[in-house]
Amino acid sequence: MKEPFLDNSEGQLFLTEAFKVIIEEVLCKGTDVKEKVCEWREPEELAALLDLELRENGEPQHQLLQRIRDVAKYSVKTNHPRFFNQLFAGVDYHALTGRFLTEALNTSQYTYEVAPVFVLMEDEVLSKLRSLVGWAEGDGIFCPGGTMSNMYAMNVARYRAFPEVKLKGLWSLPRLAVFTSQQSHYSVMKAAAFQGIGTENVFKVKVDDRGCMIPEDLGETIELAKSQGAVPFFVHATSGTTVQGAFDPLEPIADICDRQGLWMHVDAAWGGSVLFSKEHKHLMRGVERADSVTWNPHKMMLTGLQCSAILLKDTTHLLKHCHSADATYLFQQDKFYDSSLDTGDKSIQCGRKVDCLKLWLMWKAVGSKGLEERVDRAFAHTRYLVEEMKKREENIFFSHFYLTYENSPDYNDRLSKVAPVIKERMMKQGTMMLGYQPQGGRVNFFRMIVISPQLSHQDMTFCLNEIERLGNDL
Amino acid sequence: MKEPFLDNSEGQLFLTEAFKVIIEEVLCKGTDVKEKVCEWREPEELAALLDLELRENGEPQHQLLQRIRDVAKYSVKTNHPRFFNQLFAGVDYHALTGRFLTEALNTSQYTYEVAPVFVLMEDEVLSKLRSLVGWAEGDGIFCPGGTMSNMYAMNVARYRAFPEVKLKGLWSLPRLAVFTSQQSHYSVMKAAAFQGIGTENVFKVKVDDRGCMIPEDLGETIELAKSQGAVPFFVHATSGTTVQGAFDPLEPIADICDRQGLWMHVDAAWGGSVLFSKEHKHLMRGVERADSVTWNPHKMMLTGLQCSAILLKDTTHLLKHCHSADATYLFQQDKFYDSSLDTGDKSIQCGRKVDCLKLWLMWKAVGSKGLEERVDRAFAHTRYLVEEMKKREENIFFSHFYLTYENSPDYNDRLSKVAPVIKERMMKQGTMMLGYQPQGGRVNFFRMIVISPQLSHQDMTFCLNEIERLGNDL
Repeated sequence: MKEPFLDNSEGQLFLTEAFKVIIEEVLCKGTDVKEKVCEWREPEELAALLDLELRENGEPQHQLLQRIRDVAKYSVKTNHPRFFNQLFAGVDYHALTGRFLTEALNTSQYTYEVAPVFVLMEDEVLSKLRSLVGWAEGDGIFCPGGTMSNMYAMNVARYRAFPEVKLKGLWSLPRLAVFTSQQSHYSVMKAAAFQGIGTENVFKVKVDDRGCMIPEDLGETIELAKSQGAVPFFVHATSGTTVQGAFDPLEPIADICDRQGLWMHVDAAWGGSVLFSKEHKHLMRGVERADSVTWNPHKMMLTGLQCSAILLKDTTHLLKHCHSADATYLFQQDKFYDSSLDTGDKSIQCGRKVDCLKLWLMWKAVGSKGLEERVDRAFAHTRYLVEEMKKREENIFFSHFYLTYENSPDYNDRLSKVAPVIKERMMKQGTMMLGYQPQGGRVNFFRMIVISPQLSHQDMTFCLNEIERLGNDL
Repeated sequence: MKEPFLDNSEGQLFLTEAFKVIIEEVLCKGTDVKEKVCEWREPEELAALLDLELRENGEPQHQLLQRIRDVAKYSVKTNHPRFFNQLFAGVDYHALTGRFLTEALNTSQYTYEVAPVFVLMEDEVLSKLRSLVGWAEGDGIFCPGGTMSNMYAMNVARYRAFPEVKLKGLWSLPRLAVFTSQQSHYSVMKAAAFQGIGTENVFKVKVDDRGCMIPEDLGETIELAKSQGAVPFFVHATSGTTVQGAFDPLEPIADICDRQGLWMHVDAAWGGSVLFSKEHKHLMRGVERADSVTWNPHKMMLTGLQCSAILLKDTTHLLKHCHSADATYLFQQDKFYDSSLDTGDKSIQCGRKVDCLKLWLMWKAVGSKGLEERVDRAFAHTRYLVEEMKKREENIFFSHFYLTYENSPDYNDRLSKVAPVIKERMMKQGTMMLGYQPQGGRVNFFRMIVISPQLSHQDMTFCLNEIERLGNDL
């Protein structure tokens, strides 16, 4: 038997060659405004192009490098300045460096023994995020995404209210009720289903025109739930809704939670990063009164997927009590160091990826000030975009469509079909990517994500012009 | 305002410099048998060395590069040939390349629109894993770790038995019962707690001397649960237990599940990769009769954290029905392509990291044959290790300890203290890393992980000699 099976230096050489391809194809071309955002192919065609099948025998290195080029070519360039499609648009090179380092070090966050640097680092990063929330102490952990963070909050809240649930399950409890706005993220429903609470026990609170929860209706909905025999325990507010970017009014919500003795959770997966900004943090006024906060730096802060923190005000180790299983093979009590450093039992996961390093390295690189500038810059771009849109209004936007169908009885029906067609055209031409959806009484409209620090006013203007160009004949 | 805020080429230059550091410090030194596995520091000392604090202002690039060196220096070298501590030991350079590419492309796996390559690729990889299980069709998804995969299984099983649970919660159901062996992974308990079932409703089935579930006791335990008024719905078998590496006998367990109409889940997070090997796959005989299988290629296959699949035999879209929330902003029904390609609603997550590429690229590189060789090689090493240990026995191992305390009434007590001391010494000297724990009647013993293809017989011999050396005076 050949020993070793795979030579390290040979492997490192391949990685180095591949790195050059990544720099060239994904990062240089992928951020070049003259290149396409996506290279659309129909699924059958793409499958044939990629030759995805896994076979008995391996392939030579040069063929693998070509595969890497192909994967890059046909993947969407989420780092591209014209990718406005999702909340993780854009690239930060310091964070990306942190991600490469994380992958190379390949460890799990659960014990000090195997992740000494990252146990201490996670603690520092979480503590800094908490201080922006307004808490001098507390608890927290990084989770694989905002939905998981929201699930943690619901579970810990349930445990605080009814600790027996861990042992005995929900049968030992009265029927529970959860409250959230009509425009909160769908993870609330997923959490309720997954945790055995049931989606029917999620009570939706009305929102105002801007998509913000109406506190008076929260009060009434709580009474409604009670009158139906359910026991309220958890209010899920949102700072930055997914579609409209609305910030629920946290102060009056906190008043209600206080009065009723309910756990107040703030899902700030999207909006949390406004806390970096002196100018914009007022949007989350009252957040320090919450019991828990979800915050995804992989969104507005561009750390890359995944980087989501659940932060808790609690100082009684609720997180650990709620989730612990005391595995003897990981959390030995006769360790030679202080085993309270082993954070694994705070998590519902066993192995857990290191998600703090990318954020830490980026933060070290630009400082809190640099992060603040980014937030302010994103808001400034958005303001510019809104002003530009106002200038144009419908007399420019889709004038053909408007003049043709203005008085048509099926105006709304026809209008709802405009966005999907424009979307198809932009993707097939690869000029930009932008999401659309209906909401409430509104038919399909575009949702534009503006966060990347590399964006310019020109990119905003381009986007408006491009929508006009693509929808010109509709 | 300076536009753009951060220059792409400047960022790429930094990344390239950092890449060189990663190659040198993490990969060259980190896999060099002459270098230390870990550079142990007490937490306070390490915190001071690393200067983790996040401040208002950023730092210059050369200082950041030094920070990367420091992070690498004080992190555990899980790629090192003398790291036997965890189930993710070792490095595969093709997989690592896939991970870097994944990070650079930074997308979410939820829609074909934003992840066309990875939607198709995940499908191919899952289908190939399923075919190794013995299923020509079925379903599945990658999850952030084995615990999450196991949770998916429990949730889908519950939904199949009682679909009303999604809407109405557990209050609409009778008290449920879950069955697993005494030596199964602690994630079963975590899942039961998190999903509202309660840890008390997890019934532990006895194991034999080798740690394998005793099927007769499963039958009896099911009757016991019924006699207590609980309704059995889920049997969680294990292929490759965490500590002893035991494989539960799947055929007789499947017989019982068939007879009782229970969902059979196989947690093959650790052991699943034996299915690559014609010589060893008999360990999982009967797995094709299961309803679901958890399989973590990030363990024996060295793809790096995280790479965990939940595989289902189901062809009725249970996974989607169970987890869907139909978010209109992601899963528009008026898309211009076949929206059944959007897999996001199979997941309980929203954003989901791409975990298939690293496995796919490695598989393309070495083929199924190459993966089979690795499994066979790991077993061969283990066999060699066992034979070497038998040759030595206690007359060599810790002869001092044995001769001194052989007839001592507190022999076991004293013996239990040996492993922690040896562990402390190996870590402080940085010569290797190896985990220990007690189990059942056995006091602390070492658990050695042998999977890396770069390992040699010499590494096995080293490990035994080193334990002797470190415990020589005890």
